[in-house]
Amino acid sequence: MSLVSAYLHPLPATELFSDALWVEAMLRFEAQLARAQADCDLIPEAAAQAIEQACACVLLDPVQMAQRARETGALAMAVVEPLQHWLRSHRPEGLAWLHWGTTTQDVVDTANALLTAQALALLQQELQGLQQQLLRLAADHAATPILGRSLLQPAQVTSFGLKCAQTAAALGRSSVQLQRLSAQALCVQLGGAVGNNAVLAEEARRVEQALAQRLGLGACGHSWHTQRDSWLRLGMEVAVCGGALAKLAKDWSLLSQYEVGELSEAARGQTSSAMPHKRNPVHCLQALAHTRSVPQLAATLLACMEQAHERALGEWQAEVVHWAQLWTQVHAAAAALRLAAEGLQVHAPRMHANVEGLHGVVFSEPLTQVLARWLSKPEAQRIVADGSQQALQQARPLPDVVVDHLVQQGHAVPAELQSQLHAAANAQLAVQVSAARCHALIDDMPRVQHPGWEEARHDTHF
Amino acid sequence: MSLVSAYLHPLPATELFSDALWVEAMLRFEAQLARAQADCDLIPEAAAQAIEQACACVLLDPVQMAQRARETGALAMAVVEPLQHWLRSHRPEGLAWLHWGTTTQDVVDTANALLTAQALALLQQELQGLQQQLLRLAADHAATPILGRSLLQPAQVTSFGLKCAQTAAALGRSSVQLQRLSAQALCVQLGGAVGNNAVLAEEARRVEQALAQRLGLGACGHSWHTQRDSWLRLGMEVAVCGGALAKLAKDWSLLSQYEVGELSEAARGQTSSAMPHKRNPVHCLQALAHTRSVPQLAATLLACMEQAHERALGEWQAEVVHWAQLWTQVHAAAAALRLAAEGLQVHAPRMHANVEGLHGVVFSEPLTQVLARWLSKPEAQRIVADGSQQALQQARPLPDVVVDHLVQQGHAVPAELQSQLHAAANAQLAVQVSAARCHALIDDMPRVQHPGWEEARHDTHF
Amino acid sequence: MSLVSAYLHPLPATELFSDALWVEAMLRFEAQLARAQADCDLIPEAAAQAIEQACACVLLDPVQMAQRARETGALAMAVVEPLQHWLRSHRPEGLAWLHWGTTTQDVVDTANALLTAQALALLQQELQGLQQQLLRLAADHAATPILGRSLLQPAQVTSFGLKCAQTAAALGRSSVQLQRLSAQALCVQLGGAVGNNAVLAEEARRVEQALAQRLGLGACGHSWHTQRDSWLRLGMEVAVCGGALAKLAKDWSLLSQYEVGELSEAARGQTSSAMPHKRNPVHCLQALAHTRSVPQLAATLLACMEQAHERALGEWQAEVVHWAQLWTQVHAAAAALRLAAEGLQVHAPRMHANVEGLHGVVFSEPLTQVLARWLSKPEAQRIVADGSQQALQQARPLPDVVVDHLVQQGHAVPAELQSQLHAAANAQLAVQVSAARCHALIDDMPRVQHPGWEEARHDTHF
Amino acid sequence: MSLVSAYLHPLPATELFSDALWVEAMLRFEAQLARAQADCDLIPEAAAQAIEQACACVLLDPVQMAQRARETGALAMAVVEPLQHWLRSHRPEGLAWLHWGTTTQDVVDTANALLTAQALALLQQELQGLQQQLLRLAADHAATPILGRSLLQPAQVTSFGLKCAQTAAALGRSSVQLQRLSAQALCVQLGGAVGNNAVLAEEARRVEQALAQRLGLGACGHSWHTQRDSWLRLGMEVAVCGGALAKLAKDWSLLSQYEVGELSEAARGQTSSAMPHKRNPVHCLQALAHTRSVPQLAATLLACMEQAHERALGEWQAEVVHWAQLWTQVHAAAAALRLAAEGLQVHAPRMHANVEGLHGVVFSEPLTQVLARWLSKPEAQRIVADGSQQALQQARPLPDVVVDHLVQQGHAVPAELQSQLHAAANAQLAVQVSAARCHALIDDMPRVQHPGWEEARHDTHF
Repeated sequence: MSLVSAYLHPLPATELFSDALWVEAMLRFEAQLARAQADCDLIPEAAAQAIEQACACVLLDPVQMAQRARETGALAMAVVEPLQHWLRSHRPEGLAWLHWGTTTQDVVDTANALLTAQALALLQQELQGLQQQLLRLAADHAATPILGRSLLQPAQVTSFGLKCAQTAAALGRSSVQLQRLSAQALCVQLGGAVGNNAVLAEEARRVEQALAQRLGLGACGHSWHTQRDSWLRLGMEVAVCGGALAKLAKDWSLLSQYEVGELSEAARGQTSSAMPHKRNPVHCLQALAHTRSVPQLAATLLACMEQAHERALGEWQAEVVHWAQLWTQVHAAAAALRLAAEGLQVHAPRMHANVEGLHGVVFSEPLTQVLARWLSKPEAQRIVADGSQQALQQARPLPDVVVDHLVQQGHAVPAELQSQLHAAANAQLAVQVSAARCHALIDDMPRVQHPGWEEARHDTHF
Repeated sequence: MSLVSAYLHPLPATELFSDALWVEAMLRFEAQLARAQADCDLIPEAAAQAIEQACACVLLDPVQMAQRARETGALAMAVVEPLQHWLRSHRPEGLAWLHWGTTTQDVVDTANALLTAQALALLQQELQGLQQQLLRLAADHAATPILGRSLLQPAQVTSFGLKCAQTAAALGRSSVQLQRLSAQALCVQLGGAVGNNAVLAEEARRVEQALAQRLGLGACGHSWHTQRDSWLRLGMEVAVCGGALAKLAKDWSLLSQYEVGELSEAARGQTSSAMPHKRNPVHCLQALAHTRSVPQLAATLLACMEQAHERALGEWQAEVVHWAQLWTQVHAAAAALRLAAEGLQVHAPRMHANVEGLHGVVFSEPLTQVLARWLSKPEAQRIVADGSQQALQQARPLPDVVVDHLVQQGHAVPAELQSQLHAAANAQLAVQVSAARCHALIDDMPRVQHPGWEEARHDTHF
Repeated sequence: MSLVSAYLHPLPATELFSDALWVEAMLRFEAQLARAQADCDLIPEAAAQAIEQACACVLLDPVQMAQRARETGALAMAVVEPLQHWLRSHRPEGLAWLHWGTTTQDVVDTANALLTAQALALLQQELQGLQQQLLRLAADHAATPILGRSLLQPAQVTSFGLKCAQTAAALGRSSVQLQRLSAQALCVQLGGAVGNNAVLAEEARRVEQALAQRLGLGACGHSWHTQRDSWLRLGMEVAVCGGALAKLAKDWSLLSQYEVGELSEAARGQTSSAMPHKRNPVHCLQALAHTRSVPQLAATLLACMEQAHERALGEWQAEVVHWAQLWTQVHAAAAALRLAAEGLQVHAPRMHANVEGLHGVVFSEPLTQVLARWLSKPEAQRIVADGSQQALQQARPLPDVVVDHLVQQGHAVPAELQSQLHAAANAQLAVQVSAARCHALIDDMPRVQHPGWEEARHDTHF
Repeated sequence: MSLVSAYLHPLPATELFSDALWVEAMLRFEAQLARAQADCDLIPEAAAQAIEQACACVLLDPVQMAQRARETGALAMAVVEPLQHWLRSHRPEGLAWLHWGTTTQDVVDTANALLTAQALALLQQELQGLQQQLLRLAADHAATPILGRSLLQPAQVTSFGLKCAQTAAALGRSSVQLQRLSAQALCVQLGGAVGNNAVLAEEARRVEQALAQRLGLGACGHSWHTQRDSWLRLGMEVAVCGGALAKLAKDWSLLSQYEVGELSEAARGQTSSAMPHKRNPVHCLQALAHTRSVPQLAATLLACMEQAHERALGEWQAEVVHWAQLWTQVHAAAAALRLAAEGLQVHAPRMHANVEGLHGVVFSEPLTQVLARWLSKPEAQRIVADGSQQALQQARPLPDVVVDHLVQQGHAVPAELQSQLHAAANAQLAVQVSAARCHALIDDMPRVQHPGWEEARHDTHF
C-alpha cells in the first residue's frame, strides 16, 4: 500500500489482499484440488500427497511470479511451473496430476474467494464494533434533543440517539445481506478451460464438493467463469455498505463543525502543523477519503461483467484488481468510523442550545396544524411564517408571538387554543416521539454477527 | 424520451416513469394517506372522502407543477396547492387534513415505489420472455458444438446450448433476487419532516400499515428518508442484471461477425442507408447502447447515498432522476435481447465447421493429459504444442500428427495410447459433457416468475 | 424533460438538445451538403436546390422517425426516406444526389456539433453572468473578513472576496478552454460509410470545407467517426467546469447553514410545505443535484471511446445520448448558481462575528512563527496550543493569554515581542493580504467571453 | 504494486509514484523552499543551508511516516518532525525557518507535480514509441486493403495503414495537449494554511517564482489548494488518451480473432497452461485490463473537485491516491500497446482474402450511386440489395450479378454503365483513396515529442 494511501487507513498493517495471502491461497487451491481428486479416486493418493508436499515446500517470489505471468498473461503458470520443477526433482509421481483438469481462472477465482472470506470476516468485525458503539450512543442519547436538519437547514427536533440508531440499523441490514450473499458468492471455481469441465466431466461435481469442503467454501454446482452475477452481488453490497458509512461520516463531520459544535472526535494531540488549536475530524476524513471512490469502484466491477465468451480479454483480470480495492477501502472506512465512535465526544448541552436558539420556529409545522383547525390552512401558514421571523428577531418563543399576532388581529384566543399551541411547540414531546422510535429501532434492528476472525480463520482452514 | 434515445429503445411508447404516472402516483398517495388516517380514526371520514375526491378531480399540468416546484425546490407543494385550491372551493372539510403529518419526500418516495413496482413487473416480464427463449435455445442446442473461446481465441469445444443456459441461469438468479429485494425496498415512506413522525407520533405505525395495504406496498416500520440502503440494494440488482445482459449482447454480436458467422439476428429489411447487404445486429446494438452507462448510473445512485442529516441537499433529488434512468435502460436492454432471441438464427453448420477447421488443436489440453501419463508433462506439452502448429498448417487431425511425431522420435506408440489420444480429441465427447451440463443447468436454474403486468397492476391498486 | 428533472432546472423551457433542434440540424446538414457539393461542381445546381427545398418543406415527426430508426438502428434513414418521398413527388432531379457520399454518422455527428455550438453559447452566457456576479462580490468583499476553513474547521482568516475571486478565475479558465477546444471539436463530420470518403474521394476535403463554411463549423480535414478524442476533450472540459460549480455550490450551502449564517439565498416566498420559516438554498440544491452525476456522465463518455473499427456497436449511439445530458446538467448548474449569485445575501457582520468568536486562535500559526524566533519552535508550538484552549475557554484574545503564559513561566516579555504578537494575531493584516490577493486575481483572471447568443446564432447560420 | 496488478503491467519495476519518489520529492520541496526564501532575503542563508542539509541527511521510513500521518491526517508532519529532530541535534539555526509559511497541502501538491512531471515524460516516451510504430505500419500498409467494419459487420474497403494512421494522429493530439496543459498544471503550490499566503504575504509571488525555478515547475501566481481545474484538466487528458488506447487495443484484439486472422501479436512461447496452441493477444489483454477502469478513475477525480472551503475533508486526500493510479494505468496501457506494435504480425494476405470473400458486396454503396444515375435511387438500392444476396450465395462478383439482373429485367446495359459498375466495385480504387488519406494524415499529424527521460530528469532538476 502506497504511503499516500497508507496514512488514510486507520489501522496499520492490514492488507486484506496481500501478495503473501494470494500465494498462500493459490497453493492451497492446488494442494487441496489434488487431495479432493484423490478423495474421489480420480488420481493416486501418492500423487496428491506429493502435490500437497510440493505446495508446502515450494518458495514463490511475487516479483518472479509477476515476471512469468507478465509473459503469458495468466497467473497460474507462475504457480504451476515452480511446483512442476519441485515435483520433478523430489516427487515425480505428482507431476502428471498437478493442476489437473483445471485452469488459471479456477486457481485465481477460488483463491480470491478464500481471501474474500477473510476480508468479509474482518469487515463484519469492524461493522460489529461500529454498530455496538452506535447502539451505545443510541441508548445513551435516545432522548437527547438535536435539531433535525433538512437541506442543511434546521427543520424540526429529533434525538441524537435516533440518528445513531438509524445508521446502526442500516449497518445491520448490510451485515445480514453480506452474510446471505456470501453463501452464493464464496464458492469454489472449477470449470476447466472453457467452463464446461471437459476434463473432469461427470466427476466434476463430486470434485467440486470435496474441494469446497476442504477449503471451507461453497459449491454452487456450476462454473462462474464469465457469469459473475453472484460474485458481483456480494461486491455491490460492500458498495452499499460504503454508502451508509459515507452518510455517517458526512453527518458527523457536519456536526463537528466549530459553528455547530455538537460532536468532536477524541483529541489525538496536535493534528496540524500550522494550527495547533484545531480538533480535526481525522477519522471522518479517512472514512470520506475511502468512500469517495467506492461508487466508481462498483462501476468498474459492473463494467467488467461484460466478459466475452468463455474467458474475458481484460475484464476479468481488471475485476480481480478492483475487487480487492473495494473491500480494502470499505473495510478501512468502517474501521475509521469504529474508532471515531469509540472516542466520540457528544456535546449534548450544545445540541440543546442549538435547539433552544431557534425559539420554537422549528415547530412551525405542528403549530400550523393546530391553527389550521381554527383558521384556514393558508391563513394558519401565513401567521406562522410571519411569526417565525419575529420569534427569531425578538428571541421570543414562537407560540407567544403567534398568540400576540392573533390578538392584534382581533381573533379571540381561547385557553384551549393557547394550550394546544404551547403543547405543539414543545421540544420535549418531539424528543419523546424520537426516543420511542429510537428504542423501537434498537429492539428491532438486525445485529451484525460474525463468527469472529479466529473462528472464520478456522472455518476456512487457514 | 428524446429522439436520440427513443430509437434505441426497442419498444415504442414504453415510458416507465412518465409524468402522467408520476402525477397519478402522487395523487394516489395523498388520497390513500387520508383514507388510511380515517381508517385509524385520526381524521374525520368526511375529510378523507373530500381529499380523495379532490385527488380524483384536480387537473395537474406537469409544466406548471415544475414551475411551482422550481421555486421551492420541492415537488409536493406543486401537488398540494392545487388540491388546497380545489378543496377550498368544493369541500373545505378536507382542507385541514390534506397532506397531514407528511412531507415532500414521503410523497415522492412512495410514488416512486409505486412506479418502481410497475417497472419491476415489466422488467420481470422481459426477463421471463428472454429466459424462455434462452431455455428453448439451450434445449434445442444442448449438443450443438461450438468453439469455447477464451481471450477471444478458440480454446476448446463447448455447446451453444450450454452458453444459452448459463445466461438463462444468471437471469433467473437476478429475477429471484429482484423479487426478494423488492419486498424490503418497495415500501411506503412515511416519516414526516425529519423522519421521526413527529406529528403522527405513536399512530405512525398503524397509519403506515393501513396506507401500505391500500397502496399494495410494504411497510418496513421505519422511515428511510436518508438511509437508502434497502432501496439502493434493489437498484444494484438491476445494475447486476444489466451486466448479465451486456455479456449476452457482447457474445451474440461477436458470434454475428461475418467472419465468425455463427448467429444472425432476424432480417428486418434494409438496415443501412449505404450498405443494403448488411445484416446489422440492431437489437444487440440497442442492448449495448443501453447497458454501456448502467455501471455509471449505479455509481451515481451510490454517490447519492451520502445524504446529509434528515434530508439531502441535492443527493436525494438526483437519485430520483437517475433511478428512473437505470430501470428504463435495463428494461430496454432486456426487451432488445428478448426480441433478438425470438428471431435469432443459429447457424449450427457454421459452428460445426469452425470447430472442424481447427483440426483438433483445441483438444491440446486433454491430449497433453493423456501423453503426460506416458511421457513427462513438459515433454508432453512440447510435443502437443509443436503438433498443433503442424496440424493447422497441414490441415490434419492433431492426434494423427502427434502419433507421427512420437514415431519419428523413436517412441513406441502402443494401440492403447493411440486410442486414448483419439478419444481425447473427440469433439463429440466434449459436446456430450457440455450437453449434460446444459441439461443439469436447465433443470436446476431458478425460473423468472412474475405476477404478470395485469395482476401486478391489480395488486398495486393501479 | 421529465417532471422530476424539470423542477431541478432553474430555467423553464431550456432544452438544449430538443427533438425540434435535432430535426432542424439534420435537415440543415442534408441541405447544405448538397449545396456544398454543388459549390464544388460535383452535383448539379438544380439537384442541390431541389434538396434544399425538400429540407425546407418536409415535415418530420420525431415519433415516426424514432419508429423508423428503431428498425434499422440508424437515424439517418428516418430523415432521408421522407426527403426521398418528397423529391420523388416534387423535384425528382434531386433524388440521385440526396445524402450522396455520406452516412448516418456524418449526419448525426454534424448535427450534434451544430447543437453543441448553441449549447456552448448558452453555457458561456451563464458562466459570464456568474463570473460577473462573482467579480462584483469579490470587489465588494475583497476586505470582508471570513474564516478560512480547512477540514470543515476554522483555520485562519481570509476574505470573502478572495473566495469569490478564486471561483471566478476557475470559471474564466474553463471558459477560455471551452472556446479553444471547441475550435477542434465543433467540426463537420464527413467520412462516408467507413470514414475514408470512398465516394467523394479526392474531392472530400473541398466539400468538407465548403460545408463547414456554410454551417459555421470547423473543418478538421479528417473523419472523426471513431477517433473521438477532440470531441471528448471538449466534453471533459464541461465536466471540469461542472466540478468547479459543484465546489461553489458546496461552499455556499455550507456558509448558508443556520449555525454559520454567513450567506443566504434570496427569499423566494414559502419554500417548504411543512416549515414556513426555512430559507432553503434552493439554487444550491439545484446545482448540487445537477453536478452530482457529472463525473459519471464524463465516465460514460470516456467508456464510449472504445469504438470498434469504423463504426461502433452501441458506444457511439450511447455517447450521443449522454453528451446531451452532460451539457444540459452543467448548463443548469451554472444557471442555478448565476441566479443564486444575483440574489445572494452576504451577512458580513456574521462573518466578522464568527472570526471574532475565535479570539485569535486562528492566528496560532503566525503567533507560533513569532514566538519561535524567541523560543524553540516546539516550545512555541506548545505554548500557543495551550494558550488556544484557554483563549477559547476564557474568551480572551490569544496574544494576551500567551503573554500571561510567558510571564507566569518567568520569561521576560519585551515590548517588541508583545507588539509582534499582537501584530501577528491581527485579523486586519490577514484580511489585507487576502484583499491584495483578491484584487490581483480580479485583475489577472481570464474573463468569460462569448459572442452572445444572437451572434452565436448568426455565426452558426442558425 | 500487488501481484495481481503487477503481471498486467508490461514493464517490470516501473512504479511512477513509489514511496521513495514521494519522500524524495517532499524533502526536495522543503529544501528548495528554504533556499528560495533565502534567495528572496526572507530567511538567513545559514538557515536555508541547514535545512537543505537536513533534507539530504534525514532518513525517512515510509511505514513510520504513515503511522505518524495516520494520527494527524496530514502527511507533512511526518516529514517535518524528523527534520526538526535532525536540525535540533545538528544545526539548530534552521529550526525556526523549516516549513516556514507553508502547509501540508503545499508540500504534497508540489511533490505530486514533481512526480507527475516524471510520469508525463515516461508516458510521452511510450506514446512516442507507439506512434512511431503506428507510423511505420501506416507507411508500410497505406495501400494494404482491409475490410472497413461498422457495427462489427463488413462495410466497405479501407486500408490497414489508414487505420493505424488514425490512431497515431489521435495519440499525437493527446501528446500535444498533455504538454500544453502541463504548463498550467505542473506548478508549485504555495498558499499556506488557507491559500492566501497569510505568512509570506506580499513576498509570496517572489518566493513562488524562485521555488518554481529551482524545482523546474511552473508558477501560476495563485494558490490552487481547492480550485483543481488546471490540475484536473491534465488528468482528463490522460483519461482521453486512455480512451484512444482502449480503442486501439479493442480493434487489434478483434482483428486477432482466429476467425478474422488479420493480426497476431508476436509469439512469446507458451502462453496458456492448458492450451499450448493458443496465440493470446497478451499485450492487448494488458492494455484492456488497464483501460477498463480509466473512465471511473477520471470520474473519481472529478468527484473529488467538490473540495469544501480552504481544504477538503477527504476529497483532496482521495484525489492524490487516484491521480497516481490514473497515470500508472494509462502509462501501462501505452507501454503494452507499444510492445504489441513492435512485434505485430500483419497478415496482409488474409486481409486481402477477407475482402475478396465478399465478392464486391461491400461496394454496394458506390454501385448504388452509379445505378441511381440510370434508375431511380430506390430501384437502384433494391437491385443492389438483391444482387448482394446472390453474389454471396453464388460466389460471383456483385457487378456481374447486377448486370445480369438488369438484362433479365429487360434493361439495356450500355458499355458505359458496365464499365462504371466495374470501376465502382473496384477494391483497388477504394484502397487508393484510403492510401491517399493515410499519407495525408501521416504528413499532417502532430508528432509526439518529448524531451526524453534523461533531459526531463535534468530539466526538472532531479
